Amino acid sequence: MQPNLSLQQIVQQLGGSISGSPDTQIFRVGSLALAQVGAIAFFNDTKYKIQLSNSAASAVIIRPEHADLTDLPKIITDNPYAYFAKLSQLLNPAFAAARVVHTSAVIDATAEVPKGCSIGANVVIETNVRLGNNVTIGAGCVIERNSSIADNTILEANVTIKHGTQVGKNCHLFSGCVIGNDGFGYAEEANNGKNRWVKIPQVGHVVIHDFVDIGANTTIDRGAIDDTVIEEGVKLDNLIQIAHNCRIGAHTVIAGCVGIAGSAVIGKHCKIGGAAMILGHLTIADDVTISPGSMIMRSIHKAGTYTALMPSQAHEDWLKTAANIRHLSPQLSQLTDKIKALEQMVAILTADKKT
Amino acid sequence: MQPNLSLQQIVQQLGGSISGSPDTQIFRVGSLALAQVGAIAFFNDTKYKIQLSNSAASAVIIRPEHADLTDLPKIITDNPYAYFAKLSQLLNPAFAAARVVHTSAVIDATAEVPKGCSIGANVVIETNVRLGNNVTIGAGCVIERNSSIADNTILEANVTIKHGTQVGKNCHLFSGCVIGNDGFGYAEEANNGKNRWVKIPQVGHVVIHDFVDIGANTTIDRGAIDDTVIEEGVKLDNLIQIAHNCRIGAHTVIAGCVGIAGSAVIGKHCKIGGAAMILGHLTIADDVTISPGSMIMRSIHKAGTYTALMPSQAHEDWLKTAANIRHLSPQLSQLTDKIKALEQMVAILTADKKT
Amino acid sequence: MQPNLSLQQIVQQLGGSISGSPDTQIFRVGSLALAQVGAIAFFNDTKYKIQLSNSAASAVIIRPEHADLTDLPKIITDNPYAYFAKLSQLLNPAFAAARVVHTSAVIDATAEVPKGCSIGANVVIETNVRLGNNVTIGAGCVIERNSSIADNTILEANVTIKHGTQVGKNCHLFSGCVIGNDGFGYAEEANNGKNRWVKIPQVGHVVIHDFVDIGANTTIDRGAIDDTVIEEGVKLDNLIQIAHNCRIGAHTVIAGCVGIAGSAVIGKHCKIGGAAMILGHLTIADDVTISPGSMIMRSIHKAGTYTALMPSQAHEDWLKTAANIRHLSPQLSQLTDKIKALEQMVAILTADKKT
Repeated sequence: MQPNLSLQQIVQQLGGSISGSPDTQIFRVGSLALAQVGAIAFFNDTKYKIQLSNSAASAVIIRPEHADLTDLPKIITDNPYAYFAKLSQLLNPAFAAARVVHTSAVIDATAEVPKGCSIGANVVIETNVRLGNNVTIGAGCVIERNSSIADNTILEANVTIKHGTQVGKNCHLFSGCVIGNDGFGYAEEANNGKNRWVKIPQVGHVVIHDFVDIGANTTIDRGAIDDTVIEEGVKLDNLIQIAHNCRIGAHTVIAGCVGIAGSAVIGKHCKIGGAAMILGHLTIADDVTISPGSMIMRSIHKAGTYTALMPSQAHEDWLKTAANIRHLSPQLSQLTDKIKALEQMVAILTADKKT
Repeated sequence: MQPNLSLQQIVQQLGGSISGSPDTQIFRVGSLALAQVGAIAFFNDTKYKIQLSNSAASAVIIRPEHADLTDLPKIITDNPYAYFAKLSQLLNPAFAAARVVHTSAVIDATAEVPKGCSIGANVVIETNVRLGNNVTIGAGCVIERNSSIADNTILEANVTIKHGTQVGKNCHLFSGCVIGNDGFGYAEEANNGKNRWVKIPQVGHVVIHDFVDIGANTTIDRGAIDDTVIEEGVKLDNLIQIAHNCRIGAHTVIAGCVGIAGSAVIGKHCKIGGAAMILGHLTIADDVTISPGSMIMRSIHKAGTYTALMPSQAHEDWLKTAANIRHLSPQLSQLTDKIKALEQMVAILTADKKT
Repeated sequence: MQPNLSLQQIVQQLGGSISGSPDTQIFRVGSLALAQVGAIAFFNDTKYKIQLSNSAASAVIIRPEHADLTDLPKIITDNPYAYFAKLSQLLNPAFAAARVVHTSAVIDATAEVPKGCSIGANVVIETNVRLGNNVTIGAGCVIERNSSIADNTILEANVTIKHGTQVGKNCHLFSGCVIGNDGFGYAEEANNGKNRWVKIPQVGHVVIHDFVDIGANTTIDRGAIDDTVIEEGVKLDNLIQIAHNCRIGAHTVIAGCVGIAGSAVIGKHCKIGGAAMILGHLTIADDVTISPGSMIMRSIHKAGTYTALMPSQAHEDWLKTAANIRHLSPQLSQLTDKIKALEQMVAILTADKKT
């Protein structure tokens, strides 16, 4: 059952000031467009003015400078979106898995599983694994030997943690992610005139700091020699690949389908858009934003936003554009040459005229 | 054992007309190039004329206007490919998993599992899950609390269904897919001069209508507030990411490795090519085709085909192209300026001549 | 416990010649920059000269022509990287899973599991599966009916092998990969004016030859009619999609996040960069390198490197570039037309002058 709170009770816990009735009862969060009686929405951007005017929400979270835009009861705060996030956490307390070890779990005798951890059905925990307090391991997870998972961290169902991985406190790992897989490292070797690939043992580990979230089916590879490191507060979406020896700086967020090649070092507080690709052995500065779908082939030394995208077009237009791009070098050379020739001829004509 | 059918028996079930011996026996489907005696192939495109001439198939499915192109026994129909699909279904009846609950399955007492469902080894079914009739759950699947899966739907091995997900009838979910994972939603908040990410609880669900297929390792996130919806007849390939609050219109097909960002609304009967990316908070009209690998950054309001791709080149050529593109703006400006200057000088020369 | 070896013992096993003390003891491999006493690094590229000078490694593996660049004890060989790989294998012997069948494994009575195989917790092995000698199956794997896995192959935890798949000897399949999933094949059919998708049964299989590695969460689909084939020595990274009917030539390496569409035939000894996409029904010659992120839309008949990428720019510059690209056709036409007009006028002026 969801709790309900009055605006008064909300600001007592989360701060901000109230305009309108402090007894307004809030049962849930909602979007401006779809919220109904009992719901609170947030308003952060004047391009949603019409939705604000038409909203059926019981209250709204709003900036001081926008407070006049609505007569709804409101909570006034400088960062409505973050306020909304915290209020939603209050109204939607995390599901508390039963603090028990399911009888079907297979736990090695050498593993440390403190009382109060929640271990789901069919979980496998191997030798010398150490869990912190209040850890939750979802059904079907496999945690290999010598790994450690610190206090309050949650693994959703069907996560795979390879041997020797360290996961910090208050992390959240989503279903299907694979942490500590062998990095992709092979040396090419001639073999009677035909090349073969010799595997390089991947002897580093993955080290995940505190407050890191890792999305569904995302993969993070162990280091070849040294470790792959995900710093504090990093948030990773689904289906991301992070290759061996990468370091992702604190509080960086990475959207879905991104690939980061080996030994890339990403700064702190970066924002990497969905399906972007970052090549290996390069460095991205702090506070860099990469646009979605952009391939980054060189280091970026300066904060800012970087983009590498073909604009989309109706297919027939694109066919012409593609042909032009394919021939861009000769076309531009030819135009330049013709202009040069014209300039010479005009210079001659002009000189003639003066004489 | 595969059934065998005469052409006569086939057209009795699937329609179409026969040319050649109606007693021709068909044991299997095949491609024109590789089919052997006992196999039936289809011919749909005149660019495969040579394969048709050389085919060792016992019969062919063909359009009326192409019927003269071969002397093989044939079934004549307007849509050979769809006919082939249905005939292959007849010749290759779906594997029927045993209609039993494996003893190793962990099923909560509150879950409804009708007699006649097939529940594989090590399946986990949590509280208040409701299965319809004739549902098949493959080995190792985890179905979380309050989810429902309607009649005849099949989950292959190792699927994860998060809490509160609704799956329609006659759906087919492939191994490793994760349905109902938390959407990727965080609010940025200053924290003593350093920004932190505050998680926004994802309280919506995933709702999947009837006849939807979802590929291996594909992820579909639950809505932030409202639901993520996959409409009837949608077919999703492998390794696709569908973010929170998306709506995918009925009978749209999406090829592998596509990413669709949050709150995108895709029309009905769209075709989205492999590795395309669609940004969030935009709308794609019905009957839109997106070319493979294309990044769509704006809403598309009109049916048609849209493309955003760099053409590939030999690497040395591409290096020149890339340099030209990087300097396209100054290059085009410079050429334009020089032409303008020439035009002025030519105008002066021409004026002089007249005087 | 890791073994330790003297340089003398190393060259006895792996060849090469020693310069410096042959008694130098080596406990582990390291990178030039981070190696400490007891570690051996490799030097392969003169751009790392400074790291070589400053290295705290106890020894280095180096080419003959670079041997003079350091006074460290060294092993001299023509291919330091491959030598390093083999030495690392000696120093880091693969973890040997216990050669037992875990009591929680569910193995059908018709399956062949030779003594000496290692079968992890919660593994499911269905009817008529055949395992070779010394096969390792990690916890939570599901191996469906009629599949075979040959000698010495390792499946990490949570791999799914669909029915009828053949896996060769000495392969290594990583967690979360799904092999033999149904290919994505549907025929479009009009249905009272609305199109529907009719599934084409996918009756081919996946055949994987020897010495193939398959990364975490990678998916390889079964053939529609014929088989999908991965030839000997192919190495696949994480989160790759290989669609039905593809053939990947021997010793080709494919980096993470690559998608290969149906019926593509890739040559031998190719190198495909991360996040590249290869369309279906085309052919790539042997020894082709595809740059990361490149979309390949046509067959490639000649060895070489091919690229299709937008260069990245600061976002404001990119906005101008994108606008130019969108209007490239009219812009180039306009410039060309103006030049043509100027040429005509200059020709007239020049002719006038002569008369």
